[in-house]
Amino acid sequence: MAPMTTTTAGGAARDGSSAVDGPADSPFVRACRRQPVPYTPVWFMRQAGRSLPEYREVRAGVPMLESCRRPELVREITLQPVRRHDVDAAILYSDIVVPLAAAGVDLDIVPGTGPVVAEPVGTLDDVARIGPLDPADVSYVDEAVRLLVGELGATPLIGFAGAPFTLASYLVEGGPSRTHARTKALMYGAPEVWHALCARLAEITLTFLRVQVAAGVSAVQLFDSWAGALSEADYRRYAMPHSAAVLGGLADAGVPRIHFGVGTAELLPAMGEAGADVVGVDWRTPLDVASGRIGPHRAVQGNLDPCVLFAPWPVIEAEVRRVLAEGAATPGHVFNLGHGVLPETDPEVLTRVVELIHTASAR
Amino acid sequence: MAPMTTTTAGGAARDGSSAVDGPADSPFVRACRRQPVPYTPVWFMRQAGRSLPEYREVRAGVPMLESCRRPELVREITLQPVRRHDVDAAILYSDIVVPLAAAGVDLDIVPGTGPVVAEPVGTLDDVARIGPLDPADVSYVDEAVRLLVGELGATPLIGFAGAPFTLASYLVEGGPSRTHARTKALMYGAPEVWHALCARLAEITLTFLRVQVAAGVSAVQLFDSWAGALSEADYRRYAMPHSAAVLGGLADAGVPRIHFGVGTAELLPAMGEAGADVVGVDWRTPLDVASGRIGPHRAVQGNLDPCVLFAPWPVIEAEVRRVLAEGAATPGHVFNLGHGVLPETDPEVLTRVVELIHTASAR
Repeated sequence: MAPMTTTTAGGAARDGSSAVDGPADSPFVRACRRQPVPYTPVWFMRQAGRSLPEYREVRAGVPMLESCRRPELVREITLQPVRRHDVDAAILYSDIVVPLAAAGVDLDIVPGTGPVVAEPVGTLDDVARIGPLDPADVSYVDEAVRLLVGELGATPLIGFAGAPFTLASYLVEGGPSRTHARTKALMYGAPEVWHALCARLAEITLTFLRVQVAAGVSAVQLFDSWAGALSEADYRRYAMPHSAAVLGGLADAGVPRIHFGVGTAELLPAMGEAGADVVGVDWRTPLDVASGRIGPHRAVQGNLDPCVLFAPWPVIEAEVRRVLAEGAATPGHVFNLGHGVLPETDPEVLTRVVELIHTASAR
Repeated sequence: MAPMTTTTAGGAARDGSSAVDGPADSPFVRACRRQPVPYTPVWFMRQAGRSLPEYREVRAGVPMLESCRRPELVREITLQPVRRHDVDAAILYSDIVVPLAAAGVDLDIVPGTGPVVAEPVGTLDDVARIGPLDPADVSYVDEAVRLLVGELGATPLIGFAGAPFTLASYLVEGGPSRTHARTKALMYGAPEVWHALCARLAEITLTFLRVQVAAGVSAVQLFDSWAGALSEADYRRYAMPHSAAVLGGLADAGVPRIHFGVGTAELLPAMGEAGADVVGVDWRTPLDVASGRIGPHRAVQGNLDPCVLFAPWPVIEAEVRRVLAEGAATPGHVFNLGHGVLPETDPEVLTRVVELIHTASAR
């Protein structure tokens, strides 16, 4: 594939009026930095994934973890939504457990279930058996990022990692959990084990993201998908210090740091304070309300309900315009869904939503 | 079994200083009405259930729906936690789909999965096939409540029903759903079908609760377990009018109305305005903060994280005392968990928590 032009890749030259220096000057990175943008940039969590027939085709017969370890496949899957939807950023195709597996944790991603951990973590001995992560263990990520950065031109690539609390929950529960009961039991009952585990996970995550930054990503997103299971007090005590270690460890990396969770109405200020330049917001909290809580020194990302994409177009259009208006009342807005694209989503609707956002928000 | 004395049933005579007139003067009902209480009353959602060995014993071999239709079994299961824990209220043992099955919906409760609906609802014709509910169709509920009220003495019995939004989600999805994608698609895409469905469900729910009130329950709780999946704007447009029809229809019933959901940080004021005397709050929002949002004319119920019950006792005690202190800063507080008792909970811990609440909150 030839290098993408700035036009097809959604660079800042969309309005035809300015030269493009590269992804650092793209609308996406500028919005993350709360700088003026020619239009509101948009990308979608899980834009690379099962909603796309071309994704299902290239993934056929390739197990999930394996697919994250093949640089050529990662390149192709990461680029698919950029080609199709003209989104303003690509996000590295990976999975939050990739660095754990690379750090020696025996786990697999079971279709229909999610990550399954062979030996759940409960003691300091268990923690001692995890990692650290050697950058050489994820050389395939370094390679994939370099391939992508070369090809994406002015379109920024977002690095990807799970946050310590969410990773710890998988390791303690042995797999996905609705209640996080074992996780919280360890947290409350053996805080020394909990903090040792999360400190180790923070190291692994920081190494994983540093590999991506060194290879050229233009931003990073830390996914704390399950932080919303915690009260603010518990979040600040048990989760935030470890996310702060990751985000703080990237303070000198020169790329915006996005911090995302779901059901985080009460956690938004703390998730910002953890060291985010941009705080992800789900659809439960209007962006202007969220930004008021988070404060003027951080941008927001979100927050269309992914289920709205199943509505008739007039409903979608009204909701997109509402989110844009609420986003316009914040210091900086990256349009996204409030959570990932659902697999049953019609990709043509996503493309149309991108067009609408670009047109309706043009300054 | 002999009628319970006010002492074992946790009536207002606990402090030995006042005569007890009956459940309407119990600490639980008084707290719901924001009247002075001798101590903070407590009960637990799912207190009657799988955490109790005596429950597992009587349920052995009896399918869930069937167990809700046997008045003697309902009586026994409802009383078990009152006997064991000395909680301040019993809650009718039932399931939110009981009135739907009674109104002719072909469904079953599948162990490990939850309710499964044979023919999911998607059209006005589908809606037309549901109900109405004839009180005679739930005569077993009338009978169970009368048995219980006779036996509970001064201990109040709480009536039980699911709210229209949560019931509709089961009917539209065909079973439990993590995303409620089909539900929201119907809501946005066919609002006339959605509102017809919810209006019918509100009628059924109101009939179901009126049967319970007529048979003698001292309060009712409307469970909108999944309302937290909605933004406030969508909640007000699509769910609240139907919950308001149920709660408003009970305004003259003379019993407090509790309105409960999970993940409702942004919905608390609306859930109060829907017609609640008491708003249930999960552990994500401190009770005093919640009450500040809800306003001074409603009590609150909650909100210990059910996972805290897996912690060592000093952690549990500190958390119970924190919740009591936050509850003391509200106009009226009924102690509860923020969600139901998890099946793996040690029932002896629950008993000890009740003792602590009664002792620590004694005025």
